[in-house]
Amino acid sequence: MKNLKKIKTALISVFYKRNLEKIVKKLDDLNVQIISTGGTEKFIRNLGIKVISVENITSFPEIMDGRVKTLHPKIFGGILARNENKNDKKQLEEFNIPIIDLVIVDLYPFEETVRNSKSEDEIIEKIDIGGISLIRASAKNYKDVFVVSSQNQYLEFIKILDKNQGITSIDERKEFARKSFSISSDYDRNILNYFSKKNILRYGENPHQEAYFSGEMEKIFDKLNGKKISYNNLLDIDAGLNLISEFKETTFAILKHNNACGLASRNNLLDAWKDALAGDPISAFGGVLICNKNLDKKTAEEINKIFFEVIIAPSYEEEALKILKQKKNRIILLLKENKNFQKEQFRTILNGFLYQEKDLKTEEEIDLKTVTKISPECKEISDLLFANKIVKHTKSNAIVLAKNKQLISSGVGQTSRVDALKQAIAKAKHFNFDLENSVMASDAFFPFSDSVEIAYNSGIRFVIQPGGSIRDKSVIKFCDEKKMSMVFTGTRHFKH
Amino acid sequence: MKNLKKIKTALISVFYKRNLEKIVKKLDDLNVQIISTGGTEKFIRNLGIKVISVENITSFPEIMDGRVKTLHPKIFGGILARNENKNDKKQLEEFNIPIIDLVIVDLYPFEETVRNSKSEDEIIEKIDIGGISLIRASAKNYKDVFVVSSQNQYLEFIKILDKNQGITSIDERKEFARKSFSISSDYDRNILNYFSKKNILRYGENPHQEAYFSGEMEKIFDKLNGKKISYNNLLDIDAGLNLISEFKETTFAILKHNNACGLASRNNLLDAWKDALAGDPISAFGGVLICNKNLDKKTAEEINKIFFEVIIAPSYEEEALKILKQKKNRIILLLKENKNFQKEQFRTILNGFLYQEKDLKTEEEIDLKTVTKISPECKEISDLLFANKIVKHTKSNAIVLAKNKQLISSGVGQTSRVDALKQAIAKAKHFNFDLENSVMASDAFFPFSDSVEIAYNSGIRFVIQPGGSIRDKSVIKFCDEKKMSMVFTGTRHFKH
Repeated sequence: MKNLKKIKTALISVFYKRNLEKIVKKLDDLNVQIISTGGTEKFIRNLGIKVISVENITSFPEIMDGRVKTLHPKIFGGILARNENKNDKKQLEEFNIPIIDLVIVDLYPFEETVRNSKSEDEIIEKIDIGGISLIRASAKNYKDVFVVSSQNQYLEFIKILDKNQGITSIDERKEFARKSFSISSDYDRNILNYFSKKNILRYGENPHQEAYFSGEMEKIFDKLNGKKISYNNLLDIDAGLNLISEFKETTFAILKHNNACGLASRNNLLDAWKDALAGDPISAFGGVLICNKNLDKKTAEEINKIFFEVIIAPSYEEEALKILKQKKNRIILLLKENKNFQKEQFRTILNGFLYQEKDLKTEEEIDLKTVTKISPECKEISDLLFANKIVKHTKSNAIVLAKNKQLISSGVGQTSRVDALKQAIAKAKHFNFDLENSVMASDAFFPFSDSVEIAYNSGIRFVIQPGGSIRDKSVIKFCDEKKMSMVFTGTRHFKH
Repeated sequence: MKNLKKIKTALISVFYKRNLEKIVKKLDDLNVQIISTGGTEKFIRNLGIKVISVENITSFPEIMDGRVKTLHPKIFGGILARNENKNDKKQLEEFNIPIIDLVIVDLYPFEETVRNSKSEDEIIEKIDIGGISLIRASAKNYKDVFVVSSQNQYLEFIKILDKNQGITSIDERKEFARKSFSISSDYDRNILNYFSKKNILRYGENPHQEAYFSGEMEKIFDKLNGKKISYNNLLDIDAGLNLISEFKETTFAILKHNNACGLASRNNLLDAWKDALAGDPISAFGGVLICNKNLDKKTAEEINKIFFEVIIAPSYEEEALKILKQKKNRIILLLKENKNFQKEQFRTILNGFLYQEKDLKTEEEIDLKTVTKISPECKEISDLLFANKIVKHTKSNAIVLAKNKQLISSGVGQTSRVDALKQAIAKAKHFNFDLENSVMASDAFFPFSDSVEIAYNSGIRFVIQPGGSIRDKSVIKFCDEKKMSMVFTGTRHFKH
């Protein structure tokens, strides 16, 4: 094994002293020289173990009640010097800087202090400056330095000390360096949350789960009325804003559990509302409503007839607001123009997180490739693009049926594409929609031709889908036989 | 307005010099004294503007090729000194430390360096130590110090300078402090990703979205066979592991789009597989399979008959592995015991993110409260708890139908609870299940009695749900009239 290093000099500066005794005694047994400061120094000295004061090295006292202790070139030079670098070594000698090859830090407990809701001054005082600098510098120089960046790592570190009598490998040092940046990024994320006045929510998806939102809601909307916005409201608001942003025409959408259960584009908002609601007046109960035009009195009067949780509009007529405000709990949001959404998505899974770019692709007419003998006409193309926009924002597997810029029904979140279609057809029938000449959008390709067959038998004549299945040919063949028209977008829109 | 402060002395240390000229000239106009070092110092001097060298203040030269420049108590004391603190002020005088009330930093571009895939040494060298320490210290002392922590803030800062001729408010200083911790936490998160050897995925939910996983998959499972794990695979694997962890008995589950489309608990794995598959043999196509017992040869032979993407088991018989490995692309995962999952969940929405505790509540018999005249018997309770476990891990609105520890069907991700039930019943019929005496689990309460009515008409006789609706009474009344039995758990399990 190469890149083995024996620990010779340790700098220790920790907040919690629990389990520290073991480490210090072990280091002393291994003849490691210990440098320390403040309370840690006293703790070590009280154990009867020799310790060099940081001040002795820097010739500079601790100042400003400990705000400045270790931030000195004689300390950081000793941590950051590269063993392989001749110039670094020369400078160590020139300035009489001791090499430090082990750094043990336990940071000021910032989050704990916030949780115990101390005064602002006390909380700010617990922002660790020196400790973070120490662990980051040590982690950067992991080739030569071992860094322990939290009391939670003491036991694991003791094992490493025991295993090889103070000799550490490059892999061990790098792994602990990695941990350091996890500690430091989390630490500053917590401070950020504190400064951002993180919005504590009543609870998460369910009452037994604690939750908060971190971000600046007030930059996206003003709350004009209503109770506190909940975790589930926020999920729906996010889904709703992403969905509505696809539509330029006057459009109303109704969301439940992050999916649209109604949506229509019309010449005026009242009609858009009525035809959105017609899509599924039952699911609309308790939903999140969103539109992209000034909310007028007439529309407000209609909306007021149903029970809903949240309404979002870019502006409101004064009379409309008066009507909507009649219910005290109803959340009324005024959308601002500055919708500076993130273009990246993170979500936790397993023991880490998934990152991806957001799905920002919106198909236009130019993206469509007709694959059947019959091409869709202008009006049909408009419906196909309309349905495709909705299916993009619907959970997979998803099928959307639409006609005349109205969402007729959708099959959402299904484990099979055929089920999604069947569900959409059943819903359309339940609400007495005529599927004759309607369009179908699919968020992914059809693996078999069964779906278009079922669609045809229900009156659907126009299909939009990404394409790309090994059985595309048989799907196209069926459409051609039945004089259906189908376009491919080339872009899948899975969403989970 | 109180807490106004006029900027008198600035410390400037930036990587990118773009737009810096404007700021420096403006500061010079406002008679602000400028301290700087290295390339920034040269840049300012070349503009013909007076600048004090950091070295002049510290009497310590830049060492180790710039690794240590500003880390000195004479600099950090000047930043961290509290204007209101007499002792701090005394120490400033005693040690001849100049007060610094503006800090402008632009960090080494770590991520950019990684993106341009330089050598490891070059990348490590771009981990900024001094810059992060400067902005964190300044942000901590925002009461007295204004901090600009990125070149992206220059223009906004110039506006503030112009507006009030170098006088800043506490709100402005605090907002820029907040930005600092956003910069520093993101910066270290990026370093963490680099050290964690983030797992670049082929793409995200869709081919046009870039994606990666950050975490330690290898601590959760070993990949024994198959192609690269995809983003959507990971979502299913996460959902599958969470689901299977609820079951102690021999259990097999099949997932598609994060929901179970088949699941059964049996005395042996072969039966568990067969009865899981029977739940929906169509959706199982291309699914993720997971079991909690040693995968034997007989079961492998059966599994091998269908096309699936991923299989996960805690162990494999050698013969079983041989059979499963026949397909090169098939992903075979060996589950490890150490499943150190996160107990917290984050997801990005709007311009921020949502945090919540994970839903870790699993109901046991003791949690059940019978609300109907008839109580469920032992066997039925077992089925009720079984169905309730599945519904907890199914996307909302969710209804799960089960009998004899077999998932019969579910309605998933629906915008209305009635739709979820109707969908489940339709699926059960499609696959020829007899719903007589089956149980129904709902992830949230029934708002009306329509669902139990529909359930009763399909043969369902046992119901498990959280309860808590204002119409619970009418739901209970219906069940009593029809001699159904119903238990309340008191715990909702929404999942999105």
